[in-house]
Amino acid sequence: MAFAKVETRDGIATVVLSRGKVNALNGIVIDELRACFSALEADPDTKAIVFTGSGKFFSFGFDIPEFRSFAKDDFRDYLINFTDFYTYLFLFPKPVVAALNGHTIAGGCMLALACDYRVMAANKGKISLNEIAFGSSIFAGSTEMLRFLVGSANAAKVLYSGAMYSAEEALGLGLVQEATSDTHLMDKAKAIAADLASKHAPAFAGIKALLRKPVADGWTQREKASISDFLEIWYAEPTWTNLRNIKIY
Amino acid sequence: MAFAKVETRDGIATVVLSRGKVNALNGIVIDELRACFSALEADPDTKAIVFTGSGKFFSFGFDIPEFRSFAKDDFRDYLINFTDFYTYLFLFPKPVVAALNGHTIAGGCMLALACDYRVMAANKGKISLNEIAFGSSIFAGSTEMLRFLVGSANAAKVLYSGAMYSAEEALGLGLVQEATSDTHLMDKAKAIAADLASKHAPAFAGIKALLRKPVADGWTQREKASISDFLEIWYAEPTWTNLRNIKIY
Amino acid sequence: MAFAKVETRDGIATVVLSRGKVNALNGIVIDELRACFSALEADPDTKAIVFTGSGKFFSFGFDIPEFRSFAKDDFRDYLINFTDFYTYLFLFPKPVVAALNGHTIAGGCMLALACDYRVMAANKGKISLNEIAFGSSIFAGSTEMLRFLVGSANAAKVLYSGAMYSAEEALGLGLVQEATSDTHLMDKAKAIAADLASKHAPAFAGIKALLRKPVADGWTQREKASISDFLEIWYAEPTWTNLRNIKIY
Repeated sequence: MAFAKVETRDGIATVVLSRGKVNALNGIVIDELRACFSALEADPDTKAIVFTGSGKFFSFGFDIPEFRSFAKDDFRDYLINFTDFYTYLFLFPKPVVAALNGHTIAGGCMLALACDYRVMAANKGKISLNEIAFGSSIFAGSTEMLRFLVGSANAAKVLYSGAMYSAEEALGLGLVQEATSDTHLMDKAKAIAADLASKHAPAFAGIKALLRKPVADGWTQREKASISDFLEIWYAEPTWTNLRNIKIY
Repeated sequence: MAFAKVETRDGIATVVLSRGKVNALNGIVIDELRACFSALEADPDTKAIVFTGSGKFFSFGFDIPEFRSFAKDDFRDYLINFTDFYTYLFLFPKPVVAALNGHTIAGGCMLALACDYRVMAANKGKISLNEIAFGSSIFAGSTEMLRFLVGSANAAKVLYSGAMYSAEEALGLGLVQEATSDTHLMDKAKAIAADLASKHAPAFAGIKALLRKPVADGWTQREKASISDFLEIWYAEPTWTNLRNIKIY
Repeated sequence: MAFAKVETRDGIATVVLSRGKVNALNGIVIDELRACFSALEADPDTKAIVFTGSGKFFSFGFDIPEFRSFAKDDFRDYLINFTDFYTYLFLFPKPVVAALNGHTIAGGCMLALACDYRVMAANKGKISLNEIAFGSSIFAGSTEMLRFLVGSANAAKVLYSGAMYSAEEALGLGLVQEATSDTHLMDKAKAIAADLASKHAPAFAGIKALLRKPVADGWTQREKASISDFLEIWYAEPTWTNLRNIKIY
């Protein structure tokens, strides 16, 4: 794998997203993450997963410069694949702890939302669903994952503002469950993962499914329509103009 | 329009509900509000709306003395029209900020709940869904709008008590998002409206629909049955005796 | 009734669960509670109910030693009966206040969750859905009652940890609505019940149904499948080994 590095110790697998300076997401990254998590799901020795990024970003989100060259239908295929992956991750039967090492933005934030627990390095980055700031909408599933975590009222606040939140602010909103110094981030995330891994795995998986399956079932039937609505806005002015001006490398 | 006055400046329309001392709601008021919001929805120059009341009330709710003379089926027609309107307002594609200038009670509170944001003048009035205090039930949609804003536990607290909340208490419950002095109320509400108006309109509308359409879809199929249940209680003793004693002018 | 004692005064019925030291739940207890609540539902003189336990426990939950001797299908029948009862209690048309006099664990906690209001004696016991601690899953309905009370994020926290919460901690999570000294517990619970009983009964019942019926409708169709999943885990190792080591008398 070029972009998803895995290291397992004592039953805890650490998945590191690593692509360029900002860990931008594209089709290959999502395919690699999917293959990586599928292998960890099947591996009886993996009890829990820590999901983090390399460098100063967890992930800046979609690789906008790359997607600017995509025809609409190709971008739609990517979005179906991407939303399928976060749905898979939301329902992943083993515990997944996100260790947010830096900026966690847009599509990067959606992946973080899908995890069971989010620990964020204080003073090292912001977390945001900033789509509205560049004139974009989002998806049914990401809306519901956000609502699941923070409730409808805070979800509206986060999405209508597109604000960039510090770890402390995110803690207050319920976007993350813990803020810690960056030097303790991985130890903290691994300790949480180890605690969840110590539970009887089928009991954990059963409870997680009871909490999450009805929520995911509610959005999956609306996801494709939300992607179509998203594409209408994405390819129209002035969003397209904004996207042309985004540089992420 | 006799009861819904509109003034637009810099793309922000201010809708002022103005009927008698307490801005009591009846069929004509709801029809005027619906016509007014429909025109603003269609107007490309209107980017956002501030919704407020004249005098010391946002609205005291239904015009009980008028409705006491209604036959059950006529009152049912009004309720279908009223609940249709708050559903329309809940899903209104442009930002709507409620500037709660005074008492915001029962049906008046339901209209406020449908907006995107509620700013309330401190020390100028109370906000309440006080139906239970005079022996009345409410509707499926108003229950769900309340749950959307404050969660199920606080919704039960608000509805079971029928309590009258100050702006500060309402802020604590999540019933309003901001409390301010009455002299700053309209400036504050217009500033919030202008901020929301600055977003790309289709992106705002898309995100609002993702947050709210599944919620409204959940209640619309149950709304008529809830109106029938409401009417059973409304026309039976002792609720009817309570209603006979309510004077609002 | 051997295990559910009822005393009514001034329209407030007090139901006391009383079986051994820990008020362990089994088929007869649930049948008695169901008969008892059904009679109180039908009794026009009963306006509200306080539900409490005798001794140092509200209830420790299922009578594990007894159920260890059950064939799977018999235990399934009990679980269908048990989950039917908490669903009935969740939708009970009259106000029900839980007076948590001591430890409120697992199945005992599920019964408490179904009530309208929970007052807990401080320093007298813990409240917990500790199923995961002995390797067990839970049910669709208990998950949804918990989510109804505390939201999805806190529900995950409670269920993934299986932690034992003090009254103060439970208050912070929203698991209980009030903590009080044990000497004031019954007076406090009866005062809350009397306040709810003072409302017009059909209005209270109507509002309660609007808040709760859509939630219960969501889980009832999933309850039996959740019981099957629960049984798979319950009868498999290592959960069965844990259950063998549980002593509750």
